[in-house]
Amino acid sequence: MTDPFVIFTPSGQRGRVAPGTTVLAAARALGVDLDSVCGGRGICSRCQVAPAFGAFPKHGLTTTEAALSPRNAVEDRYDRIRGLAPGRRLGCQAEILADAIIDVPPESQVHRQVVRKRAEARAITMDPATRLHYVEVREPDMQEPSGDLQRLERALAEQWGIPDAKGDLRTLQMLQPALRKGDWKVTVAVHRDGPEARILHVWPGYYDGGIYGLAIDVGSTTIAGHLCDLATGEVRASVGLMNPQIRFGEDLMSRVSYAMLNPNGAAEMTKAVREALNTLAGQAAAEAGIERALIFEAVIVGNPVMHHLVLGIDPVELGQAPFALATADALHLWAEEIDLTLHPDARLYFLPCIAGHVGADAAAVALSESPQLSDDLMLVVDVGTNAEIFLGNRARVLACSSPTGPAFEGAQISSGQRAAPGAIERVEIDPVTREPRFRVIGTDAWSDDPDFPPDTAITGICGSGIIEVIAEMRLAGLVDASGLIGSAEATGSPRMVAQGRTHAYRLHGDILVTQGDVRAIQLAKSALYAGARLLMDQFGTDTVDRVVLAGAFGAHISPRHAMVLGMIPDCDLARVTSAGNAAGTGARIALLNVAARREVEALVGSIHKVETAIEPRFQEHFVAANAIPHATAAFPHLPPLPEVSFNTGGEGRRRRR
Amino acid sequence: MTDPFVIFTPSGQRGRVAPGTTVLAAARALGVDLDSVCGGRGICSRCQVAPAFGAFPKHGLTTTEAALSPRNAVEDRYDRIRGLAPGRRLGCQAEILADAIIDVPPESQVHRQVVRKRAEARAITMDPATRLHYVEVREPDMQEPSGDLQRLERALAEQWGIPDAKGDLRTLQMLQPALRKGDWKVTVAVHRDGPEARILHVWPGYYDGGIYGLAIDVGSTTIAGHLCDLATGEVRASVGLMNPQIRFGEDLMSRVSYAMLNPNGAAEMTKAVREALNTLAGQAAAEAGIERALIFEAVIVGNPVMHHLVLGIDPVELGQAPFALATADALHLWAEEIDLTLHPDARLYFLPCIAGHVGADAAAVALSESPQLSDDLMLVVDVGTNAEIFLGNRARVLACSSPTGPAFEGAQISSGQRAAPGAIERVEIDPVTREPRFRVIGTDAWSDDPDFPPDTAITGICGSGIIEVIAEMRLAGLVDASGLIGSAEATGSPRMVAQGRTHAYRLHGDILVTQGDVRAIQLAKSALYAGARLLMDQFGTDTVDRVVLAGAFGAHISPRHAMVLGMIPDCDLARVTSAGNAAGTGARIALLNVAARREVEALVGSIHKVETAIEPRFQEHFVAANAIPHATAAFPHLPPLPEVSFNTGGEGRRRRR
Repeated sequence: MTDPFVIFTPSGQRGRVAPGTTVLAAARALGVDLDSVCGGRGICSRCQVAPAFGAFPKHGLTTTEAALSPRNAVEDRYDRIRGLAPGRRLGCQAEILADAIIDVPPESQVHRQVVRKRAEARAITMDPATRLHYVEVREPDMQEPSGDLQRLERALAEQWGIPDAKGDLRTLQMLQPALRKGDWKVTVAVHRDGPEARILHVWPGYYDGGIYGLAIDVGSTTIAGHLCDLATGEVRASVGLMNPQIRFGEDLMSRVSYAMLNPNGAAEMTKAVREALNTLAGQAAAEAGIERALIFEAVIVGNPVMHHLVLGIDPVELGQAPFALATADALHLWAEEIDLTLHPDARLYFLPCIAGHVGADAAAVALSESPQLSDDLMLVVDVGTNAEIFLGNRARVLACSSPTGPAFEGAQISSGQRAAPGAIERVEIDPVTREPRFRVIGTDAWSDDPDFPPDTAITGICGSGIIEVIAEMRLAGLVDASGLIGSAEATGSPRMVAQGRTHAYRLHGDILVTQGDVRAIQLAKSALYAGARLLMDQFGTDTVDRVVLAGAFGAHISPRHAMVLGMIPDCDLARVTSAGNAAGTGARIALLNVAARREVEALVGSIHKVETAIEPRFQEHFVAANAIPHATAAFPHLPPLPEVSFNTGGEGRRRRR
Repeated sequence: MTDPFVIFTPSGQRGRVAPGTTVLAAARALGVDLDSVCGGRGICSRCQVAPAFGAFPKHGLTTTEAALSPRNAVEDRYDRIRGLAPGRRLGCQAEILADAIIDVPPESQVHRQVVRKRAEARAITMDPATRLHYVEVREPDMQEPSGDLQRLERALAEQWGIPDAKGDLRTLQMLQPALRKGDWKVTVAVHRDGPEARILHVWPGYYDGGIYGLAIDVGSTTIAGHLCDLATGEVRASVGLMNPQIRFGEDLMSRVSYAMLNPNGAAEMTKAVREALNTLAGQAAAEAGIERALIFEAVIVGNPVMHHLVLGIDPVELGQAPFALATADALHLWAEEIDLTLHPDARLYFLPCIAGHVGADAAAVALSESPQLSDDLMLVVDVGTNAEIFLGNRARVLACSSPTGPAFEGAQISSGQRAAPGAIERVEIDPVTREPRFRVIGTDAWSDDPDFPPDTAITGICGSGIIEVIAEMRLAGLVDASGLIGSAEATGSPRMVAQGRTHAYRLHGDILVTQGDVRAIQLAKSALYAGARLLMDQFGTDTVDRVVLAGAFGAHISPRHAMVLGMIPDCDLARVTSAGNAAGTGARIALLNVAARREVEALVGSIHKVETAIEPRFQEHFVAANAIPHATAAFPHLPPLPEVSFNTGGEGRRRRR
């Protein structure tokens, strides 16, 4: 008699197994990804499968219910207590008796995929550093003395193929009572990141209460965290809070200055940010309704200054050339080393930094957007106070940082403000009437909509609003290619306000867009474009296939307006997308997939870094990019822009001298 | 022209080198053990050598002063500032120009030997886990961004062949200022124990202030520490203090009981012993006159209960069969993990435990005495409350623990006391007059010496005293082979005092040796002998070649008296030696020689453990060993003992019923 033939779907893995082999054993033998925490003891139910019966011409197989052994007492008990959906079997109980087709549903796969929202983003394959394993440990024997830990280690080797797990001191402290309370059966959390596997926790008996990890993006302004279930990848809580370091300085350089000028400055900022991380962890655990001590890992990203301050390293060297990082490599630490209270034995992973201006947050963006896996030539721009820019494809990836300054965030803008209720965030200007309409954060209706509440507080313009209004002004012929705002006479619009030798556009009430505002945005966008262009030079290309805008701010930029301003090179607008908080996503990927840590480490090592500050062509590109959209580069994907010129020898002449 | 031929003494390593090769470079090329911290930059002077000039027929070589380049400016400056002894050269400066014979004095050898006091003990070869290295680090370069740590790591790889040293977080925190203060030259302390090398400290420029390590033996009664210079091996301070856990229980079992009966008992004892370790570290540093933060390592040994309590592990399992250790393996920890304040980044090494009754202290004894390296069959007895016993040679090593109880330490003895001033520690009884003379701790003269101060306080008998007096009583015919003390009538000595049905010997004033005392010692010595005998059975031998008495108490036992009592098997008395505090010595070896850690780990893994409690023959041996010296075993190395018998149907008859 021939052994039964079994096909696992969706993987298609197949082979013959001896009759009576359990589905779990067959899956293991054939390399099928079928989960199990209890190791086949009918406890965890992670190995649920759905056998398929009938004729399957595609597989050349007809299967019947006789393919598997009937449901047994373990399955009945499980069904009674926890419920087993119709058609489902426990893989560790059902035995294969004849040819079978067995589907492994996604939730039964160890390496299940966490689907990301964006169509173009890759899925995250679950492969966390910390996992649970249920083991049965041999009892001590006076004839053959050995430590309880050594017998647990042996059990992990024999029952789970983990040959080298070591216990931490805290594991040792909890080990003996747990083994005895669980009658020599325990569940352990094993952390492996790199060559070393460590046992982080021991629960008596079978534990199924979940283990969690935090992905944290420490920004200069906000700190954001995602609390993830380390088994399913599910985001259980997303929290954000202000970086309390703001009281020491609004932007990065003012914080570095604070560290330079105050003897204890760096230490104060370290203390503040670590407190905030603890608050974040507490909020995340509360929001998810879990014990904080069940957080076994955190992955942390941040720009170099934040990275150093979280680590307790004085960032003073990052404030001056040559911008030397204390360390560029990824770091493995105990949470305790940075005073972060999670599980007492929790581990931290800091992504590597790329250069003195291109930090672990940028590395996380690179991991999230993965230009190194793209067939297309891909430009990734993380827009913030500094813009981090990547250009690359499977062949190679280049990176640089460009000093855009804070104009894109509404700073240095006459009516600029943070993105908060009351801020104008979207603008349209009628090209005929030159009248604007806009949308305000906190209100859904446009300003010209009858539903727009007349009492809406309108307090200023945020970053995305300033980009849109200037781009719209350019599209409406109110600003010329050189960035000059036209007068009421030249434009025929009564909204133009004379201010000395220059003009402004009255968007709403006192909220004007001044010549100075346009100049500030021109400087910022020139820096951004020049950085991208420098990478294109190095890459030897004049065009890019795709553009990804990353960063919390990037999520709100309208691609069309960004391109009208010449912030980014010309590209099919349908291929300009926003990646949202890609740094946070990269941190989450590194949390859920340990191989991604090696991937980002390799990527950072292979990325060619271009230092804009010492690259002579940067200045050249910067000057050429001052025009809107650009003095020389073609933007075939944009509609023709009005050919106006408001150079009357005023502000314009002074600039050209 | 043939290249010069160079011979290094005392190693005899030799070979040809290109003319102009420095002595240091030649030594490295030929594998000669020549020290250098500064890497050949003329700073550290560790590479001092003594060239020999003249005719050396033994080597077939005649050398002249022209063999080496003349003393150069670096050596002149060094001589001026620090002094260079006549005939000495700096190996990194002197160039070999012609055939040369060059002596490497012991202090210039990296792997110099620390000579141990005892003739039969092996020397310790210096090979500490923590070493200093002077490196020159490349400055940061914006064109090729990399972290300061990565450039330091590269410098260590290139200049010292340490390819994989990683920095701890604390290293990162101190790294950048040190590199800049030292103008990119720094001295680093690198710790390697096993596969991982970690940078523990960074000093600006060249640092020569010494680094230190502590070898600690945590005994139930006393805690002893040796502070060692990690470059020379020199013991800079030896300190001891009482184990403050004594307030929770005198002996191990009463402390385990305390942990069992009090909810927070184990934690209290952990706190107490950790405080004592901190006191010890402080005292050692003060005695040596060094900064405590220069202690970069500690090696800790102790019996299983002490081992667990230091680690914060509840020892309750060690108080009941099957005496399961939480862990038997060696441990690598940060000093901080057990709240021990040394250098903030200091590392700990705990020796492995052998079994639930045979701890890391016993492993240290095994390392110190190294039966596995002995051609002779060697019995090692660590005498304390529990005796740990090893028997073995190059072929194999057996170990057991035997429950001797505290009688050997003066407990359970009517006039017993700890070894302290006032205690009788040595006794002789005239075989003719049966009159005793004795020596008291704190007084040099014997009691019958005219110099013996008449006002000497004589307060009791300590462990070594009780062994001597009972052995002397046996030699003088006052105690028979069964352990019975004779009456005044039977012995003819007026010192015999009747006590009910038994008799006692008046040693001095109220200080008597009672029948109960003899019985207590008989029980203890029977356990000790039975353990040794059990190992001899397993080994298949009736004799041993050598006996080593270890333990602080072992240092004071007179081998002859121990053998008269039958504490140890018969052996040539000249081959019964004391190893002093061998556990402390073993800890010191593991501190100074990292290879010894692997050696003791391998040894502990290969030792065959014999559990006396479940070995049926133990009881049999125990009964047979009750006689003095023994009921059946021959003691040919002892003189014939008086054949007396005091069995008059009294105490003796009751025992035999």
